[in-house]
Amino acid sequence: MKVEFINPFIASLKNVIGTMAAIELHSQKPAKKTDERARGEVSGIIGMIGPQVKGSMAITFDAKLAKNIMKNMLGEETQAIDDEVRDMVGEMTNMICGGAKNALAEQNYQFEMATPVIVSGANHTIQHKVDGPKIILTFTSDKGNAYLEISFDN
Amino acid sequence: MKVEFINPFIASLKNVIGTMAAIELHSQKPAKKTDERARGEVSGIIGMIGPQVKGSMAITFDAKLAKNIMKNMLGEETQAIDDEVRDMVGEMTNMICGGAKNALAEQNYQFEMATPVIVSGANHTIQHKVDGPKIILTFTSDKGNAYLEISFDN
Repeated sequence: MKVEFINPFIASLKNVIGTMAAIELHSQKPAKKTDERARGEVSGIIGMIGPQVKGSMAITFDAKLAKNIMKNMLGEETQAIDDEVRDMVGEMTNMICGGAKNALAEQNYQFEMATPVIVSGANHTIQHKVDGPKIILTFTSDKGNAYLEISFDN
Repeated sequence: MKVEFINPFIASLKNVIGTMAAIELHSQKPAKKTDERARGEVSGIIGMIGPQVKGSMAITFDAKLAKNIMKNMLGEETQAIDDEVRDMVGEMTNMICGGAKNALAEQNYQFEMATPVIVSGANHTIQHKVDGPKIILTFTSDKGNAYLEISFDN
């Protein structure tokens, strides 16, 4: 997977969380995903299909970050991962993937997005079944962490 | 969502599990998904995009069924939901959605499939973020249960 394909997802995630929740995420170096697996509380997953690409993106939030995003967006304390949080994660998933899609379209990588699916449950893990490489990116902040996973068929 | 759109998924799930693992699943009446949420051990999720449709399918297995499928396919007892089980679930997800895709293509509903994503974790729940209806189908057997969720944007 080319770096020019990953960077728009990194930029879009930072931009969406920064704009919507005023939380600055710091991205760690991308790693080829082998054994390491994101473990989080709530994830958004979305499929991508285009003439040159076929893959999926998952964004996993730990409970701390999910609650802090809700707090900053709504000004209310959230106690649990409830339907409101899941809705927010679905919205974020659409926005993050949509931002990357627009940036990539300018580089002539076109794809369409499926509808987001939200998974919740303590310590769930996510695995992408593709022939191509799987990339996992860790994002840290003092408000909690997120994990972005992108993978494509060759 | 029209019944002719759901039936191919039901038929394909029964056919795949019946053929691959010799387990006969019984489908319960489809329900519009509102509050009820599948809780399972391992799920396969796949996005679908076509000219007329945009949505997602998720198949959730309880631990009992996942282990019994492994046992019947490989002849070995599986103790935990490990990478082999997750791989099997990804494969099944592709086959189930692929079967429905082929059947629906004959009815002139065309769509492309994204790559499957496998989620594991005790008692995780899945939610589809779409404008249209969400359908959840329960499949039972003496070897364990499965839940099929299909949803589309209007």
